[in-house]
Amino acid sequence: MKLIRFGAIGNEKPGVQLEDGKRLDVSGFGHDYDEDFFGGDGLEQLKGWLNKNADNCPVVGEGVRLGAPLCRPSKIICIGLNYAKHAAESGMEVPKEPVLFFKATSAIVGPNDDVIIPKGSEKTDWEVELAVVIGKKASYVSEAEAMDHVAGYVLHNDYSERAFQIERSGQWVKGKSCDTFAPLGPFIATPDEISDPHNLDLWLKVNGEMLQNSNTSDFVFDIPTSISYISQFMTLLPGDIISTGTPFGVGLGFNPPRYLKSGDVVELGIEGLGVSKQSAKAYGED
Amino acid sequence: MKLIRFGAIGNEKPGVQLEDGKRLDVSGFGHDYDEDFFGGDGLEQLKGWLNKNADNCPVVGEGVRLGAPLCRPSKIICIGLNYAKHAAESGMEVPKEPVLFFKATSAIVGPNDDVIIPKGSEKTDWEVELAVVIGKKASYVSEAEAMDHVAGYVLHNDYSERAFQIERSGQWVKGKSCDTFAPLGPFIATPDEISDPHNLDLWLKVNGEMLQNSNTSDFVFDIPTSISYISQFMTLLPGDIISTGTPFGVGLGFNPPRYLKSGDVVELGIEGLGVSKQSAKAYGED
Repeated sequence: MKLIRFGAIGNEKPGVQLEDGKRLDVSGFGHDYDEDFFGGDGLEQLKGWLNKNADNCPVVGEGVRLGAPLCRPSKIICIGLNYAKHAAESGMEVPKEPVLFFKATSAIVGPNDDVIIPKGSEKTDWEVELAVVIGKKASYVSEAEAMDHVAGYVLHNDYSERAFQIERSGQWVKGKSCDTFAPLGPFIATPDEISDPHNLDLWLKVNGEMLQNSNTSDFVFDIPTSISYISQFMTLLPGDIISTGTPFGVGLGFNPPRYLKSGDVVELGIEGLGVSKQSAKAYGED
Repeated sequence: MKLIRFGAIGNEKPGVQLEDGKRLDVSGFGHDYDEDFFGGDGLEQLKGWLNKNADNCPVVGEGVRLGAPLCRPSKIICIGLNYAKHAAESGMEVPKEPVLFFKATSAIVGPNDDVIIPKGSEKTDWEVELAVVIGKKASYVSEAEAMDHVAGYVLHNDYSERAFQIERSGQWVKGKSCDTFAPLGPFIATPDEISDPHNLDLWLKVNGEMLQNSNTSDFVFDIPTSISYISQFMTLLPGDIISTGTPFGVGLGFNPPRYLKSGDVVELGIEGLGVSKQSAKAYGED
């Protein structure tokens, strides 16, 4: 199943995307995609409800805005430097154990919303990432059990302001949490839709030029390792997002570095998880 | 006004604490202390409701568990090294601009709940802190406007596992986010209750021995500076917590360092914000 949310910012409704691309409004189901939905048997219930009611669901028009395909989660945990070649371009070593950082959940936006270059930013950068949605509370889970805690997968652009992240006194969170820095979607694909999350092509273009182009088979730490690892340090709640790191090809890695300016268009995609597209605007620009 | 929440874990109800210490169940008011409450006119409405209904509110018994005095916020932002003498004991320089890090909101517990020493932890440490509760969405606010965005103040123990924080590959979040590492309360005091948040004694004892004893007048960065600064990097939402850093006297600073073991009792307090008390237990211990 492919879960979407659609409508005006702050007023999104739940929907599903069918195999033929048609999108259905499932707000009649009566439950949004939140912690209770993922943590309970929301997915099963929705499937059952759809079997009976799909024919009567309103169709979501082509031009309707997509929101992030889940309600605001308790946290977004990101894994840093999880592709060897990206660690090298960032001038950092491949870590011996996963590097973790948080992004503010207030950074979440829809997949095709504008990315806002923050005030004073000169180093706004892109990072295509495979994000995992947690489906079951996870505390001290083993690698063997870890994949039972996955509700689905979603495309994420982990926007990063490199000066805020690296040059402004310790801890990366400052450069990761600006509004609009976490476009999620177009949809969450449930695990049955993704035959092997460790063998997915992922790519990102700026103004049509391919800059990131890799495959999740290049992960330093795979998904079960990451889930198990994180769950040793904190409890993962249903709906929480783990973003699994970005491959080679971010702006910071070019010589000289390349960063976003107003008017740039960023497109990205992951095999089986669709594409998203953000236009860069300066803060305060119409 | 002093806001409390009480009852079993996960099933807390809102209440208030009166000047004589009596606690009233205000669940009849019909709204818990969440983002909508703080962001709207919840405090004003509650005050009006209490004027009419206080006499009919059930009294909360002495033995009833207190929960954290607000619903789970979108984020907890902590300011690192915000007292000069604490920076020195941590072997770090006083920062030129605020150091920010996040704690997982899943770490929040009630003020007198046990603190659980995580599996494999040998360096669980304490940090008494003044925490600020945001009352109004804050993005790019000036220092002059900043205090208008405060809904109240609350006592926080920013528990920290020093090996997880410092020795386990980059970024402090790993040592800050374990379950039970963010006891909040006993209550949120609204700003009218605290004549000067920059002149409050704060202290912490372990097994009766005074280990932290300072005053918020020793802040490196004061509250308006911190709110304004954070709001340049991310949007603060109503109910969000800013924890303003800890003074000298954490376990890491002793020679040799002193860390918590099962059975230790931690008590802490801030002038005007009450006291809290946590008993340390090893993970899995009854």
